[in-house]
Amino acid sequence: MEKLTYAVLGSGALGGLYGAMLARSGHDVHFLLRSDYEHVRDHGWKIESHWGDFELPSAKAHQSVDTMPACDVTIVALKTVKNEVLPDWLPSLAGESGHVLVLQNGLGIENEISQFFDRDRILGGCCFLCCNKVGPGHIRHLDYGRIVFGPHETNAVAMQMAQRIGVDLNDAGIEAQVSDDLNSVRWRKLMWNIPYNGLSVALDASTDKLMASEVAVDLIRSLVTEVHSAATACGAKIGAEWIEKTIEHTREMVPYDSSMRLDFLAGRPMELRAILQNPINAAEAAGAEMPRTQVLCQQLAFLQERRSAG
Amino acid sequence: MEKLTYAVLGSGALGGLYGAMLARSGHDVHFLLRSDYEHVRDHGWKIESHWGDFELPSAKAHQSVDTMPACDVTIVALKTVKNEVLPDWLPSLAGESGHVLVLQNGLGIENEISQFFDRDRILGGCCFLCCNKVGPGHIRHLDYGRIVFGPHETNAVAMQMAQRIGVDLNDAGIEAQVSDDLNSVRWRKLMWNIPYNGLSVALDASTDKLMASEVAVDLIRSLVTEVHSAATACGAKIGAEWIEKTIEHTREMVPYDSSMRLDFLAGRPMELRAILQNPINAAEAAGAEMPRTQVLCQQLAFLQERRSAG
Repeated sequence: MEKLTYAVLGSGALGGLYGAMLARSGHDVHFLLRSDYEHVRDHGWKIESHWGDFELPSAKAHQSVDTMPACDVTIVALKTVKNEVLPDWLPSLAGESGHVLVLQNGLGIENEISQFFDRDRILGGCCFLCCNKVGPGHIRHLDYGRIVFGPHETNAVAMQMAQRIGVDLNDAGIEAQVSDDLNSVRWRKLMWNIPYNGLSVALDASTDKLMASEVAVDLIRSLVTEVHSAATACGAKIGAEWIEKTIEHTREMVPYDSSMRLDFLAGRPMELRAILQNPINAAEAAGAEMPRTQVLCQQLAFLQERRSAG
Repeated sequence: MEKLTYAVLGSGALGGLYGAMLARSGHDVHFLLRSDYEHVRDHGWKIESHWGDFELPSAKAHQSVDTMPACDVTIVALKTVKNEVLPDWLPSLAGESGHVLVLQNGLGIENEISQFFDRDRILGGCCFLCCNKVGPGHIRHLDYGRIVFGPHETNAVAMQMAQRIGVDLNDAGIEAQVSDDLNSVRWRKLMWNIPYNGLSVALDASTDKLMASEVAVDLIRSLVTEVHSAATACGAKIGAEWIEKTIEHTREMVPYDSSMRLDFLAGRPMELRAILQNPINAAEAAGAEMPRTQVLCQQLAFLQERRSAG
């Protein structure tokens, strides 16, 4: 069987790390880049990772999807706020039989893609990692790194592809796990993302500052509990022990700024729709309320609006 | 019938305004002051009010309760965060037959006072006013000004005293209204105080900035609605039309910084217990949840804690 070829859309911290590791292990990996295009074309990637540092001096860099070949797997690692480009990009990148693997935060993205793309060829996953881009083509991977992923709608073909990708990821040195319950995987990630991304912006505090405050941890716990209830209402199967586990894992984490806080501090739009509003809507459709998450979402929207207004 | 004598504890914006107006109309009014003591003793009060400016060149200023005589009515206009002094002060100030009128924000204060003071002689009220202290002995009263007050526990003696105080206030030029349902009065004020005090600090925004944002108004509405539901569960009788009225009245208000925001910006402790935690507890005891208010309360506690830590 020929080695799978990969396209990586959005070569920030996450796309850069995983893409460079796949390329290092011998896969054909095509990176779509914007600001880092020239640097990566000329110098490749420099990866500092707690799994081991390495350099990839030569990488297939593209400035436009027009120069990219159809690939077996297109990894979507853009910020969700850029997703309006996907209807134009994905069909040509994936060709007749290629699959799409959505490694974005939040909920509901696979459903949106299924509006214009064969839903049997959509996979999604969550990455549990602390990783930042610290310079052009330069990634610093601080902690964790596991990908849990699976078919958007479970079927034999998509599951087979998920298994093949899982082998590729493992061979590349990436901790990866295939799941036949993407909904549960996504909601479990939201149990972290909603409180920590949200509060780190609303309270202008890094996760370690939040964890050092008893009242902030109480607030985090109430949010994690609310997300867990909503998840259950939406059919996710997540044991209640994950409420405390989510908090305790964060306590053990290296001091880390959430991606939403980094976006906000850098003046970039925040992923409010994917991470907060879509889960609220999904819960509401399942008859569950998320009043705490709603407060957070509205507060963040206000802060973003004010910043945009200058 | 002799004119009632008044003691005013806490001569900030509210105590200064109402106390000076009562003194102007001929009442014996004893002001307990701290930082402004010398100024008020030597120069009295300077009041700028949308009801009419005036000066009260001479005022009975005290630096300690020890020099104050027992008065018919002791007006408690301190910040609630200072209430630990009340068990020492109130019994001697009120003497054998004096009444206490609590004009503080929030909920549950009259109940706390009833632990050490005859509950039949406790009255409470809410002030709907925009008023700031702008200098020593210098009050600027921008908008509104009505006091709605009544007995803590309705009984004939307390109601009679409320009526007498009401006449005094009206004669002094103060818009005042006696109510036999203090619980409803307090909750109706909380429908403003919880969202506007809370969000003005959490989002670092004055009320006019909040009202200019559609998403902030949505958030305010969800909070006002939550407070209204909690109020109803706690036996308050407030028509649902007050949800929109509360918001619309604020839209017409002069640009105004909430007292909690002024406290926070000035480095003073916020009235979190009286304005947020006590209502949450009262609602919980009545079987109602206030998750949105809880988020706000915990956020504010975190911000206050961080500021205290420097």
